[in-house]
Amino acid sequence: MINFTVGPVQMEEEIRCIGAEEIPYFRTPEFSALMKENEALMAEFMKAGAGARTLFLTGSGTAAMEAAVMNLFTKKDRLLVVNGGSFGARFAKICRIHGIPHEEIRLESGKALRGEHLAPYAGAGFTGFLVNVHETSTGVYYDMELISRFCRENGLWLVVDAISSFLADDFRMEEWGVDLVLTGSQKALALPPGIGVLVLNERAVKRVQETEVESLYFDLKEYLKDGLRGQTPFTPAVSILIQMNRRLTSIVERGAAAKPGAASERKPAAERKSAAELGLAAEQRRIRELAEDFRSRIAGLPFEIVSEAMSAAETPLHPTGCDGAGNPVSAHRIFEILKDEYGIFICPNGGELADTVFRVGHIGNLTKEDNARLIEAFWDLQRRGLL
Amino acid sequence: MINFTVGPVQMEEEIRCIGAEEIPYFRTPEFSALMKENEALMAEFMKAGAGARTLFLTGSGTAAMEAAVMNLFTKKDRLLVVNGGSFGARFAKICRIHGIPHEEIRLESGKALRGEHLAPYAGAGFTGFLVNVHETSTGVYYDMELISRFCRENGLWLVVDAISSFLADDFRMEEWGVDLVLTGSQKALALPPGIGVLVLNERAVKRVQETEVESLYFDLKEYLKDGLRGQTPFTPAVSILIQMNRRLTSIVERGAAAKPGAASERKPAAERKSAAELGLAAEQRRIRELAEDFRSRIAGLPFEIVSEAMSAAETPLHPTGCDGAGNPVSAHRIFEILKDEYGIFICPNGGELADTVFRVGHIGNLTKEDNARLIEAFWDLQRRGLL
Repeated sequence: MINFTVGPVQMEEEIRCIGAEEIPYFRTPEFSALMKENEALMAEFMKAGAGARTLFLTGSGTAAMEAAVMNLFTKKDRLLVVNGGSFGARFAKICRIHGIPHEEIRLESGKALRGEHLAPYAGAGFTGFLVNVHETSTGVYYDMELISRFCRENGLWLVVDAISSFLADDFRMEEWGVDLVLTGSQKALALPPGIGVLVLNERAVKRVQETEVESLYFDLKEYLKDGLRGQTPFTPAVSILIQMNRRLTSIVERGAAAKPGAASERKPAAERKSAAELGLAAEQRRIRELAEDFRSRIAGLPFEIVSEAMSAAETPLHPTGCDGAGNPVSAHRIFEILKDEYGIFICPNGGELADTVFRVGHIGNLTKEDNARLIEAFWDLQRRGLL
Repeated sequence: MINFTVGPVQMEEEIRCIGAEEIPYFRTPEFSALMKENEALMAEFMKAGAGARTLFLTGSGTAAMEAAVMNLFTKKDRLLVVNGGSFGARFAKICRIHGIPHEEIRLESGKALRGEHLAPYAGAGFTGFLVNVHETSTGVYYDMELISRFCRENGLWLVVDAISSFLADDFRMEEWGVDLVLTGSQKALALPPGIGVLVLNERAVKRVQETEVESLYFDLKEYLKDGLRGQTPFTPAVSILIQMNRRLTSIVERGAAAKPGAASERKPAAERKSAAELGLAAEQRRIRELAEDFRSRIAGLPFEIVSEAMSAAETPLHPTGCDGAGNPVSAHRIFEILKDEYGIFICPNGGELADTVFRVGHIGNLTKEDNARLIEAFWDLQRRGLL
């Protein structure tokens, strides 16, 4: 199978091989050192700035979303939630469940966020802002410069879900004044699902320490404390964290190798940072080029891109054709045929968009040759009158 | 390394190899079928009876403990919590955090639960009972017959954490009237950590559906609903669930192969149940024999077993010797030396017991030869004056 979904995605062979190894006991200095390296590299790749902390939560991305809201906000807050699809709706649902006052900025499916959407909420007594920078369900990438400016001007705490955007798009946490950003292991990190990662800036760390949380598992105070010694309060998904370490350090190593005159071995600490920067940029470029390659190849196929502003992580497509009986081609049917007859996974949509939109991911261990195979399959579907 | 901890533990080669495979997309009929088989086999191995449901939560065992309490009990309940170590204390902490009235039955470290501990609470208006059937921190296995009788006589809801006991000790959910039992992937299931499994009987399912839960991630109503079609509300740890399927079906297959006149291929549905029973009994016997083998071999070594009633899953030991300077031998120091100099993990204790107790696990892919190597290492430590 070639896997073009947006998670779980294809993993590098080196990462997969770690999945076949025995898992070491983890309450050891060796595992602590690995976790501290994970913490530092995740913060560096998020461009988090000084004083940031990284926490690792065993769970789905939704667990990280809920923990973020529970640990930073209370019933005394008043939040703005961008809701342009099912993940925005999920943030709103979390607020509702926890009784946190909030209003939703509802966007039509596929539409970008613009200044006019934010303007009515300026100076209106809000305290925080929740956004999925890439609304994965519809493939819309929101303008972080716009959001950042609005939050600064209005003194809002800014929490960003970058689950499917991290590593695919640049994330400038400190520059944008993001207080907490979260991601998941199975997107562009290209690891098995099971770990949520939260990066908090200094004031978010302080706020977590002052917030009372009605949960043991989601109380981030314990994670902050144990993280100081490279540990977690509860048994984490150890194997994924080991794979994460290899993935993150291998991005740095590739950055080091790409430096002029660099040998492939690990650099001394002083040169390390720029190796990380170079490696991160190279990984982002690789994903962006894959996306651009795919988007250029679909010319002539009966598809319409249904997002005004895309992440490099995925391309959301609406099939515009009709089948032999004159009925619109079903996006979900294309997913099924590609899976069953071509050995290719694309990413179906659920809910209202199930029949009208499917998505093609560009994250994970994919190549332009994989793109070519998918495009060939689309043309074959068309020859068969199925597209 | 040989790993005698109680999780993560050694995995079978077949299970490890699945960890090196690409992870398929999971919103498919194929994955749903696998999940339904997982659900049925987990309920069967817990001897859950008709009408039971199995839920899979991506998270640590603690996540499953907290979800169980949150979904079955409210501030109107009054619970009894057996607290004989750090996992009993964790159940009590969960109750405290969620404002659920409770009293703790405190047991001294290593002590069994007896009728006299329960007697004062009979007819005293309690509504539920929380117990870790195997208090893993001290290696004490509680008497489920006693607990079951007490809960029946007093009309208590019974919730059991069998995280480190499942597959190592027999669990008779229906017979004991257990309403909810939970376990984790990294104990005797011998899978990577990251999945909690909850099995609910019919009345627990009903109660979950009537209970309001202030959490999105831990609201089991969604898991019950999506589970009907073999799915989960949020992206689960897919690879672990695939490994779980292989592990569970392989136990059944071994049971089938052990049947008189049986071939090794899968049996028709009618014969299936007894193959599962035979396979489960064989796995439990394998673990029990490993434990008995180890316990017989430590004769003559300066160790004291510090539990009045043990699970087959582990043996808790107190080193009774002194070092050259006349100081008591430190249990944690033995852990460190075995790790660094012998390539062997035993399981250290945290907190108060760190220096006085270590534990030897008998779960995971261990053999009697592994036991022999550990015993040899202990004798070597003694020769070196370190034990």
